[in-house]
Amino acid sequence: MKCRKCGEKAVINLRQHRLALCKVHYLEWIPRQVDRFIHKYGMLSQQDRILIAVSGGKDSLALWDILSTLGILADGLYIDLGIDEGVLYSHISRQTIEIFADTRKLHLHIVDVKQEFGQTISQMANKTSRGKGKPCAVCGLVKRHIMNRVAREKGYDVLATGHNLDDEAAVLFGNTLNWELDYLARQGPVLEANHPGLIRKVKPLFRLSERELAAYAILKQIRYIYDECPHAIGSKAITYKEQLNYLEEQRPGAKLNFYLSFLKAKKKGLFNAIDQEQMEKLNTCPNCGQPTTAPGECTFCRMVLS
Amino acid sequence: MKCRKCGEKAVINLRQHRLALCKVHYLEWIPRQVDRFIHKYGMLSQQDRILIAVSGGKDSLALWDILSTLGILADGLYIDLGIDEGVLYSHISRQTIEIFADTRKLHLHIVDVKQEFGQTISQMANKTSRGKGKPCAVCGLVKRHIMNRVAREKGYDVLATGHNLDDEAAVLFGNTLNWELDYLARQGPVLEANHPGLIRKVKPLFRLSERELAAYAILKQIRYIYDECPHAIGSKAITYKEQLNYLEEQRPGAKLNFYLSFLKAKKKGLFNAIDQEQMEKLNTCPNCGQPTTAPGECTFCRMVLS
Repeated sequence: MKCRKCGEKAVINLRQHRLALCKVHYLEWIPRQVDRFIHKYGMLSQQDRILIAVSGGKDSLALWDILSTLGILADGLYIDLGIDEGVLYSHISRQTIEIFADTRKLHLHIVDVKQEFGQTISQMANKTSRGKGKPCAVCGLVKRHIMNRVAREKGYDVLATGHNLDDEAAVLFGNTLNWELDYLARQGPVLEANHPGLIRKVKPLFRLSERELAAYAILKQIRYIYDECPHAIGSKAITYKEQLNYLEEQRPGAKLNFYLSFLKAKKKGLFNAIDQEQMEKLNTCPNCGQPTTAPGECTFCRMVLS
Repeated sequence: MKCRKCGEKAVINLRQHRLALCKVHYLEWIPRQVDRFIHKYGMLSQQDRILIAVSGGKDSLALWDILSTLGILADGLYIDLGIDEGVLYSHISRQTIEIFADTRKLHLHIVDVKQEFGQTISQMANKTSRGKGKPCAVCGLVKRHIMNRVAREKGYDVLATGHNLDDEAAVLFGNTLNWELDYLARQGPVLEANHPGLIRKVKPLFRLSERELAAYAILKQIRYIYDECPHAIGSKAITYKEQLNYLEEQRPGAKLNFYLSFLKAKKKGLFNAIDQEQMEKLNTCPNCGQPTTAPGECTFCRMVLS
């Protein structure tokens, strides 16, 4: 297979786009696509101070790399979750990101969960009945809390995350299988800050697949953590990703079509009433000052302080 | 495994209900469930004249059998589609149903598509560009047209179909993968006749799975057509059913939960605006007098008369 642009040997074939590209043109194509999405969805403006949540995986590091390539300055935020039982997952992730940031002279914030709260994610999860043995929900909660707080405290305008199409489609798939209207109303590539305590969130990679991003990271020689978080093994998200991959195989573009048709339905106002309902429910946590749907203290404060 | 009711040897284990039953109690349980759904969803009232669309498959014959068991009188409608290339699918289906109706002294209407319109489903499909080699969409259209017309001409109040949970969930899955709002707004176990030319439609089996109905038909010794329609092989519906079965295996009840949570979202008014929009678009076909969203003649008349 030959590169559509130059006729050289292609390194990747993007079935859904009917596009084969060589290394040089692929490494050009990806940032150009991201640039297009940033504009199309109004994600970032020139004066924005941007914070990227980096995990050490391919997606967040590729995002940081791509934004740099596009001349968009962004600082990083790494949350050290202390997941170091068995494999040194957090330890290695942190090192990987520190090297990435140092080499490229990028500014990195680090929040060490254990240092800050005296307990790791696993310890927090084990205290709750729903989190016991299944720390993913608790981990998500803690990360969202910290990301929002750091972004606001340090004066950023927007938080960018590395969620790719597979991530987003899997979450959408799970939410749809249960018709979780509250979650569906809140899902999207741009989450506006419709509460004074909430940071605006954007997902510039949401239209690129896991495979496309892995290819980018490898060809760009970005050192990243290959392993999934040890807690994620056997998670529902992985099952959903497998199912979507199966659909994709049968009909290239099925995954993107699923997500984009959802966004179209949303734009048509399908979830407006529910969104409105949720916004009206938002309170301010008397302890940390962050927005919460709980009537008193937010779930994070109740969980960590308990 | 033993029957929960009598302790005899169970013939079926319903994982999702954590219920194992012997033959006698299973054959009691199914009609009781259907009776419960008929009342819960307000499907049928005592004075209703009911027409059942029967295909010769397990579901529609089981439905006819169950309604009889419950003392609910219903007439049958068989549409002979003339699908007799290779295997004599329509021929054998028709015979099966005729024997079923004769033996039980039930009244059966037959519409022979070839006799009535001078062409079989395959011939109709081959005339259209979208139907060529894929007659399922055209077949659905023709069946809906005939069912509605016969039900109204012969003075029935309601049309009952044998759609089971697997059918309904697969259609929902497909509609959701593309967020087909028009179709989603119209899907459900009870479709009210909100146009003077439209018959009310109900699906009393929509909460029972394919497996549950096959077990019922076999244990009740109902002779039915085992084969899928030869045109359906490799269809999207079958792929979707496989995927839902995979989810069901991992989490018993997933399929029903998917469908019921959709109904709950619908009840909350999620699709009200879209439903309203569609109703406002309904016209009357100047040729056949049936309702249509097309501005002039309905798709059926355009297709058959062309």
